[in-house]
Amino acid sequence: MNSEVVLSPLLLKEYDLKGKVVVVIDVLRATSTICAALANGAKSIIPVLSVEEAHSYKAKGHLVGAERNGEKVEGFDFGNSPREYSREKVGGKNVVLTTTNGTRCIRMSLEADEILVGSFLNLSVLSSYLIDQKKDVILFCAGWKDKVNLEDSLFAGAVLRALGTSTKLGNDAAEMMVALYDCMKDNLRAYLDHASHAKRFKRLGIEEDIDYCLSIDKMPVLPVLEGNRLVLKPL
Amino acid sequence: MNSEVVLSPLLLKEYDLKGKVVVVIDVLRATSTICAALANGAKSIIPVLSVEEAHSYKAKGHLVGAERNGEKVEGFDFGNSPREYSREKVGGKNVVLTTTNGTRCIRMSLEADEILVGSFLNLSVLSSYLIDQKKDVILFCAGWKDKVNLEDSLFAGAVLRALGTSTKLGNDAAEMMVALYDCMKDNLRAYLDHASHAKRFKRLGIEEDIDYCLSIDKMPVLPVLEGNRLVLKPL
Repeated sequence: MNSEVVLSPLLLKEYDLKGKVVVVIDVLRATSTICAALANGAKSIIPVLSVEEAHSYKAKGHLVGAERNGEKVEGFDFGNSPREYSREKVGGKNVVLTTTNGTRCIRMSLEADEILVGSFLNLSVLSSYLIDQKKDVILFCAGWKDKVNLEDSLFAGAVLRALGTSTKLGNDAAEMMVALYDCMKDNLRAYLDHASHAKRFKRLGIEEDIDYCLSIDKMPVLPVLEGNRLVLKPL
Repeated sequence: MNSEVVLSPLLLKEYDLKGKVVVVIDVLRATSTICAALANGAKSIIPVLSVEEAHSYKAKGHLVGAERNGEKVEGFDFGNSPREYSREKVGGKNVVLTTTNGTRCIRMSLEADEILVGSFLNLSVLSSYLIDQKKDVILFCAGWKDKVNLEDSLFAGAVLRALGTSTKLGNDAAEMMVALYDCMKDNLRAYLDHASHAKRFKRLGIEEDIDYCLSIDKMPVLPVLEGNRLVLKPL
């Protein structure tokens, strides 16, 4: 088993996804939100690319989350905070979601054998599954508007550390991120305050979301893409 | 002063180079070779993009270095090993150079106010100059065929550490690389054995080049692009 880390959507075209499992990573916050919503009983999450597409679902009566630039888009049911997607609100429902970075990455990965969603909330469940299935893995960091970001990159390192000797480190980005995670893991929260996105969150007054999104194994579920929907993988 | 790290040529388009100083980094080996050749008395280095262009210079009687995929291209005077560019061979001469990654990055940076060449060989001289000139800095890692690589990324971290409090860390890649450098600096040579490029060098039997290219401050010169040529900046 070989695992490679892709640090930005702009770099994905250098990698062949065929026959591999892609883990889409957008820790702050799309993939954390997807884990939370499915763990809280949502039937499925439908990731869509544009606010327009999200509007058309809303018009048909769906529950819809829409975020751009870190903020909820006016007129939708949710933004992109995992704390909004409570059991009361999403239980038994199909939820449509569009975000600045994360949902686009899911759509970019369709050539892969399987597309999973990763976040600190489901780190152990995700890693155990990857070890069991034995296919090559692409850890695909959404970043922020095509730039590399700290939290997604570090999470890729956390997954590699959890995979341990089950995997080879397939590219230099993998080597770098597992080393950086080893250095920083005991001070993860403090270190993430250096992230540009954390600074953005402070400006938006949503710092509590960072603590939530760093809660390791809080939501032990495994979202997987089936057709155009993310659903829970039976474990 | 603000310093940003660009980890791959594919990411450069996300950054505005105007008014900034770009440091092109291709530690193994183009930018180390350029430092060595100029330190050994070459009058200038003319970076060219294609082997064809290099051939036309060769036909006109120039000394020409050409490397593709880590190996010297047949029919040229040099490959891309800094150890080849001795004072006896390059002293007083204009040398044309084309390499797989590094020379292309110089050409991609023409919008910048100034284009410098960085390697471990000129780390302190480069860093002192950057501190003095007070412009914003882009540390542009050539990588390997558009993928992120370990040695260039770590060198970006080394420069940031040398700049210290003179600079703000302008993006998450800068935050990550200075942290990774701090973790790895005491075991740099051993850590670089993890790099894909180091493995490539082992296959090619040119491991000695790695030790040479990691010799900090061995060549205290500052190559700068003037017109279409790299020359020594008077210090």
